[in-house]
Amino acid sequence: MKLEYTTKHLDGMAFEMTLDGHHKLIMDSDDDFGGKDRGPRPKQLLISALTGCSGMDVVSILNKMKVEFTSFEMKVETEMTEEHPKTYSKIHMIYEFTGKDLQASFKKIEKAVDLSQNRYCGVADMLGKAAVLTSEIRLIEG
Amino acid sequence: MKLEYTTKHLDGMAFEMTLDGHHKLIMDSDDDFGGKDRGPRPKQLLISALTGCSGMDVVSILNKMKVEFTSFEMKVETEMTEEHPKTYSKIHMIYEFTGKDLQASFKKIEKAVDLSQNRYCGVADMLGKAAVLTSEIRLIEG
Repeated sequence: MKLEYTTKHLDGMAFEMTLDGHHKLIMDSDDDFGGKDRGPRPKQLLISALTGCSGMDVVSILNKMKVEFTSFEMKVETEMTEEHPKTYSKIHMIYEFTGKDLQASFKKIEKAVDLSQNRYCGVADMLGKAAVLTSEIRLIEG
Repeated sequence: MKLEYTTKHLDGMAFEMTLDGHHKLIMDSDDDFGGKDRGPRPKQLLISALTGCSGMDVVSILNKMKVEFTSFEMKVETEMTEEHPKTYSKIHMIYEFTGKDLQASFKKIEKAVDLSQNRYCGVADMLGKAAVLTSEIRLIEG
């Protein structure tokens, strides 16, 4: 194994990690846990990773399939356990596309989401071992 | 389940997510995958989440135990699978503390890391279901 990542403690509850050599990410807690909200809480970065990973897969596949859309958002609904360690028990991903006559491309969009969820997205594969991961496609005319 | 997170596609491979109401995080791929490196690659945000989550636990517990240190870094070594979906198969976390006479506090530091890894850190619990998670403590006099 090679050394790949370093996260430094700044002060209080703040930590800084440098990603891909130059993107700085500060994580912090809020006042209630001794932090100053200098950056996001860490756990939800799992959801960032999940949407970024799957979103890039889906856009890349739809580009190859020549499916055009005017906007694309992922909305994520979660359920958390109440006991320690607090984890996501359910993660539901809504892939919401806006565009013209997208219904005609529904099968292709479904295929792209399926390929991401079940073949390409490593984050979905990992989180799917800990939480129940479900997904849904919404098409909006516009 | 309630709606909790939204990630928007910007253009190319770039996605933006707003965390805790006001922290914007842009994720992007590099040139090789059609991106412009406007933000970090998504998958390694799993490691950010892991170090931020566990680091905050450990600092919080050591503060309560009155263990003082001058600096604290987490170094993470990983192994990745070669087949799709590409996931972390091994994650080794090195908790590296610098301070005066830390050896005298080794048992307390070990306890803090153990409590985080096995009781409090939800991210470690989730990623530990998908990858082999190991940890190590390093103490540096200084």
